[in-house]
Amino acid sequence: MKKIEPKILKGFRDFLPKQMAIRRKVFDIIKDTFESYGFDPIETPTLEYSEILLGKYGEEADKLVYRFKDQGGRDVAMRYDLTVPLSRVCAQYSQQLTKPFKRYQIQPVWRAEKPQKGRYRELTQCDVDIVGIKSPLADAEIIAIIYNILNKIGFEKFTIRINSRQVLFSIMEKAEVSKDEILSVIRSIDKLDKISIEEVKQELRLKNIKSQTIEKIFQFIQEAEPDIFLRDMLSLVEKLGVPKDFFKFDPILARGLDYYTGPIYETFVEKPKIGSITGGGRYDKLIGIFIGQDIPACGTTIGIDRIVDVIEELNLWPEFSSTNTRVLITALDEFFIGQAIEISQSLRLEEINTEIYLNFEDRLEKQLKYADKKGISFVIILGLDGAQENTVVLKNLRKKMQKEIDKSEIIEELKRNE
Amino acid sequence: MKKIEPKILKGFRDFLPKQMAIRRKVFDIIKDTFESYGFDPIETPTLEYSEILLGKYGEEADKLVYRFKDQGGRDVAMRYDLTVPLSRVCAQYSQQLTKPFKRYQIQPVWRAEKPQKGRYRELTQCDVDIVGIKSPLADAEIIAIIYNILNKIGFEKFTIRINSRQVLFSIMEKAEVSKDEILSVIRSIDKLDKISIEEVKQELRLKNIKSQTIEKIFQFIQEAEPDIFLRDMLSLVEKLGVPKDFFKFDPILARGLDYYTGPIYETFVEKPKIGSITGGGRYDKLIGIFIGQDIPACGTTIGIDRIVDVIEELNLWPEFSSTNTRVLITALDEFFIGQAIEISQSLRLEEINTEIYLNFEDRLEKQLKYADKKGISFVIILGLDGAQENTVVLKNLRKKMQKEIDKSEIIEELKRNE
Repeated sequence: MKKIEPKILKGFRDFLPKQMAIRRKVFDIIKDTFESYGFDPIETPTLEYSEILLGKYGEEADKLVYRFKDQGGRDVAMRYDLTVPLSRVCAQYSQQLTKPFKRYQIQPVWRAEKPQKGRYRELTQCDVDIVGIKSPLADAEIIAIIYNILNKIGFEKFTIRINSRQVLFSIMEKAEVSKDEILSVIRSIDKLDKISIEEVKQELRLKNIKSQTIEKIFQFIQEAEPDIFLRDMLSLVEKLGVPKDFFKFDPILARGLDYYTGPIYETFVEKPKIGSITGGGRYDKLIGIFIGQDIPACGTTIGIDRIVDVIEELNLWPEFSSTNTRVLITALDEFFIGQAIEISQSLRLEEINTEIYLNFEDRLEKQLKYADKKGISFVIILGLDGAQENTVVLKNLRKKMQKEIDKSEIIEELKRNE
Repeated sequence: MKKIEPKILKGFRDFLPKQMAIRRKVFDIIKDTFESYGFDPIETPTLEYSEILLGKYGEEADKLVYRFKDQGGRDVAMRYDLTVPLSRVCAQYSQQLTKPFKRYQIQPVWRAEKPQKGRYRELTQCDVDIVGIKSPLADAEIIAIIYNILNKIGFEKFTIRINSRQVLFSIMEKAEVSKDEILSVIRSIDKLDKISIEEVKQELRLKNIKSQTIEKIFQFIQEAEPDIFLRDMLSLVEKLGVPKDFFKFDPILARGLDYYTGPIYETFVEKPKIGSITGGGRYDKLIGIFIGQDIPACGTTIGIDRIVDVIEELNLWPEFSSTNTRVLITALDEFFIGQAIEISQSLRLEEINTEIYLNFEDRLEKQLKYADKKGISFVIILGLDGAQENTVVLKNLRKKMQKEIDKSEIIEELKRNE
């Protein structure tokens, strides 16, 4: 058989044990926080009928959806976000779900974007949403959750920027933007993070918006104030324990997706310098597409991939172990295989993750190097010269210490060193 | 906008909170067991270049791979199993990985099979493999892990059937099956679980195998004995604590996939009656396709979907809660929103998952019904007629009891009822 070059697609990634360990810790923080506020998980399929996904995100995004014909000729598409599938779920099981429905969802999504540093074609989203109620407390809880998660991860300085589509819509109205151009104008304003005001203005002129209208838009944005719903929400955010330094009303925030109808929120991390890592808002009309009547809903996405990248790049968690294995049992002769198994079984009973080195013909140095490379803290050596029949040598690789102990003392000794 | 019918593709599933809770518990048992033997997790992309996946599973399986051209015209395919991606990973990062490489992987795979009860197009596989060593202890550890997982899940009677491709190959040789027909004959024998001996013989005749050869094959299968490697492995399985009733040499076991080279294993669950839920074996030549030299490897897949189906159908875990939320705080007036937030925050600090009912305008019955439907055990009611200013009513919905307690006693009271 001819050799096949082992390679992966651009924008896709393998996660080896060390990265998996960091990812898992981040997921655990996120899940624990979601659950502390009463959210339960759901999962939806990777493939959906294309008509379920398309036409909700806006034209530009629709082109990035992975879409194909399956073996049965069905027009199918890969999950692009977690909000549209949630909306479908809420319509499909509306009788069965408790309302308000507080769900979280952590799954990969696929976007055929140009891959670049920090931007992937396969990425994991962590979404948390409240469906079935239009209360500023719902939006406020989402903001509090974002704050708590980023705080627990260890980010020192970040701002949750908050605006409302209502605020933007009334600015557009006052500036006399025609109804069918409003979403297109908002999508341009959304680019203010990435390009200059002049460039946004230029883009708007290319969209045939009058210069006078453009000037008005920017003037009204500067003068904008939160609406009543947003004011209530901001006051509840504070009551929920989010310090004032960490959130602010920001009328320049627009968000790119078409489906938002009320408050919108986005988090900008300044220290470490990451940029935007959460995005969300209220979308009271999206579920209606599937059920035929409006169902209020709000929520956010948290971009786990950028968070993990930063933890790795800045080595934010230096003490982090790359393995779940605590003990390696080594021996220098097949004769000890029975003893190795016996000790390993007794450690597992005590919930100490234990591995037997599988090739007793390897030299001791090679076996120790294996433990070191994998990140295992303790090595038990059987049958070392000079050791008594009932003793083993226990090596602590972190502290670079070793001693001979009785077999019966192994568990106690390991627990002492936890 | 026209209404879109909310529906999903056949063979694909949504998982709502109750199913997610059962799935998570099963995953936790599986992960904990894998890790107790020194395995660490990895993950690989959903999409691979098609040439990476195709040509390894056999002709019939290749047709079931979801395959399409992406936006850049690349020929891509969706993950079909976890063994081929692992092999690619072992070749691609061979310098970086510790060897033997003990990895586990829990991810969905996609197969365009005819959907039927218990057979899905999107299913989750849990794989555990040891790469880089040809030792019967490696295979034996895989068997011990299977036993421990199924035992912890609560299955009472199951048999891990063990055979070896070597045993089958020498039967084929003795029966004078020509070399290029051997894998095809093995694929037919693999169907003995599902169809009768007569039907298998008929299939072999259609494949132009002589009647005399077919009779010899079945005669030699009956007389077969384990080879040396398998004998060593079976004895180590016993040393690793697997009771004799739970595993056996079974020369009729064939396994469908082409890439196995040594021992093969499959678990048949008899009580509850589920059938085959694990499959694996040794595949010493698969990684070689990607790296140009043989690397020994062995492992198994555990079919989580069938396991979860059975737990649900037979209600094996009746006490299982469908929510992670322990406490619901309800109130009958917006006035209490500050108090509700305060109590919720104090409970979260104690790691008690707490939800505030978000619509204080709803009647109390509706709020209580919400808790009951969601499966929340405790409800704290604020501002109930007759309650003192500093007290709340704490309802235990499971025990159908309630009492008025001082706010300062809430945490203690909840902990007492854990």
